[in-house]
Amino acid sequence: METKYLALPGPTYVEPDVLLEMSKPIFNHRNSKFKELLIDVTEKTKKLLMTENEVFFLTSSGTGAMECAVVNCFSRGDKVLALINGSFGQRFADIAKQYEVEVIEHHGTWGKGFDQEKIKEIINEHGDSLKGITIVHCETSTGVLNDIKSISELRVSEDTLLLVDGISSIGAESVETDQWGIDVILTGSQKVLALPPGLAIIAFSHKALLACENSKLPKYYWDIKTYRKFYKEKKETPYTPAIPLYTGLLKQLKELESKGFEKEIEKHKNISNMVRTAIRAMGLELLNDDHVSANTVTPILVPEGIDLKEMRTILLKKYGVDVAGGQGKLEGQIFRIGHLGNVEPLFVISVLAALEMTLKELGHPLEIGTGVKAAQEFWFDGK
Amino acid sequence: METKYLALPGPTYVEPDVLLEMSKPIFNHRNSKFKELLIDVTEKTKKLLMTENEVFFLTSSGTGAMECAVVNCFSRGDKVLALINGSFGQRFADIAKQYEVEVIEHHGTWGKGFDQEKIKEIINEHGDSLKGITIVHCETSTGVLNDIKSISELRVSEDTLLLVDGISSIGAESVETDQWGIDVILTGSQKVLALPPGLAIIAFSHKALLACENSKLPKYYWDIKTYRKFYKEKKETPYTPAIPLYTGLLKQLKELESKGFEKEIEKHKNISNMVRTAIRAMGLELLNDDHVSANTVTPILVPEGIDLKEMRTILLKKYGVDVAGGQGKLEGQIFRIGHLGNVEPLFVISVLAALEMTLKELGHPLEIGTGVKAAQEFWFDGK
Repeated sequence: METKYLALPGPTYVEPDVLLEMSKPIFNHRNSKFKELLIDVTEKTKKLLMTENEVFFLTSSGTGAMECAVVNCFSRGDKVLALINGSFGQRFADIAKQYEVEVIEHHGTWGKGFDQEKIKEIINEHGDSLKGITIVHCETSTGVLNDIKSISELRVSEDTLLLVDGISSIGAESVETDQWGIDVILTGSQKVLALPPGLAIIAFSHKALLACENSKLPKYYWDIKTYRKFYKEKKETPYTPAIPLYTGLLKQLKELESKGFEKEIEKHKNISNMVRTAIRAMGLELLNDDHVSANTVTPILVPEGIDLKEMRTILLKKYGVDVAGGQGKLEGQIFRIGHLGNVEPLFVISVLAALEMTLKELGHPLEIGTGVKAAQEFWFDGK
Repeated sequence: METKYLALPGPTYVEPDVLLEMSKPIFNHRNSKFKELLIDVTEKTKKLLMTENEVFFLTSSGTGAMECAVVNCFSRGDKVLALINGSFGQRFADIAKQYEVEVIEHHGTWGKGFDQEKIKEIINEHGDSLKGITIVHCETSTGVLNDIKSISELRVSEDTLLLVDGISSIGAESVETDQWGIDVILTGSQKVLALPPGLAIIAFSHKALLACENSKLPKYYWDIKTYRKFYKEKKETPYTPAIPLYTGLLKQLKELESKGFEKEIEKHKNISNMVRTAIRAMGLELLNDDHVSANTVTPILVPEGIDLKEMRTILLKKYGVDVAGGQGKLEGQIFRIGHLGNVEPLFVISVLAALEMTLKELGHPLEIGTGVKAAQEFWFDGK
């Protein structure tokens, strides 16, 4: 059976009218048509990110944008605090270490938020010498939403840049780039923006752009100075852009803006709460507490006696439902339902229905319909 | 008027059935469907490149693949000879210099081939200490096809890797990766493969892969060791791939294979010769001599008294024909007709017809129909 329900934390379902928009003839990326498109997506992305900062687009996955953030802001030997409570927090640290940045790894518990007091101590200890903090907003591997605003406020030095991976949060969580003092924020096309993978977005604050001027790390494709110069002088990207993703992005940004950015965040929040309510009603255990759970992905402990691989295979082959497994140290222990982008309540109810029947088939003691009923009631009452 | 004739050296026209193929629903890049696709495109790409070397795919433009080649093969201080006779040869050198590779820049004349004797001297002078040579096969900025096979044979040390940018040549020129001893070859999706931009292809020889193991240059997203491990162990890419470009690539590779790779090269060669014949018949001057001219792009000197910007504007607005300007030091002096990928003789004849009428309108002394007639005759006689 073909996948009909892509319940991953990315890539996400792409609407046919977006695919159609992206199927229009390729055009010259050095002509006015592309320049106008680039200006449009730049300005609309600023609204999405709630920022006046400069926005750039990269032909890469989100990981490329993470590397771009690091190599533009720092130099060899710079002290950077990497806040890690999942795979992607670790990735930020690993990238910086590749470039001989002096990374102070602070490990929180996977599936929990950070202990603000401990972080405060580390930041105070290093004072002005701390050149940056890296953090993931929604840690896709655990479904934990880290508190960016509070971490930002713990900074004691003007010189400490805050680099935020917003890959699976932007559009589905409140992100006030300027208000919160985020220096670099980045995301990818295949998450809440509900486009195919292949385009990354990154925004640099004035302070971060000053750091770019002084950064000594080697770079070429990721060098933001080149992107900045091309945008300023020609409204172009320096290297051939992934044109269809820009036309798709414009469509999606217009759509999000017309629906209302706030409303979209609320939709994701409601769906997340609905899923959590249903999972609890089914007697399954959630990895995270409610107060740290992200709106885009719900990680669930694999019930005892259930073979995860078998469960995922039945879900996929029999029901066309694709849920994600665990990552890193949580591999084999959890599975994750992604609910971001174009998802609607009935989509998630279908996923839950298939999950109940699959678990039942595998011998898990569970009354079919319990979770679905709880989800329906949650939604019905909330309307 | 919309662009109807994309006569650029990339991005090129994408067929509707390829766009349709790429518009199929997004699927999980960690499931068997993607793994099978990745194996398929890997194996078929090997045939295209005439190689048994390992092939990898990057979500990036071609420039990203050039950086990938450099950062995986070398270390700081390594001596590398950069052969430069156009913008892209310079780019290879600039990338390497960013990473403090000791770059020996050898400048040939833009629009000419290299002087083999001079290169031989430099290679002999450095002997075993020369860790690599970078060269562009088809220098898109000048339309010169560099002689890779001969340069390869000039090497005197087993330690000298040959890195080749085949971005606008692969598929349209004979490239015998293994026979010629190319260590790294790379290309992009938006050229002869006639896909939208956003995917780069890169192949490493056994010797180059050994160099990857020893390279000390910092890298994360471009680290071929990671791609290699993921392909070997899981038949996956490490980071979310640009899925539709892989489905499109499979379709295009199947198409090229069924048409015959040799036949496609011949098609490009014939079209190139047809364009050159027509341009000469029109009394315009070609930048390059026949024996160094590439099959994919024809650079033409801007006729005296003609305003290039005005010429391109009329071509685009009145006829929907988009030809490229010059790059780097040739900006303003030449324009380039790209004829690669899905191009057919009648496409090029349309472009030539529009060019004649545009030049006539701008007061250039030229009898309308001369170039078109010469192109028709060339094609008719060759059939």
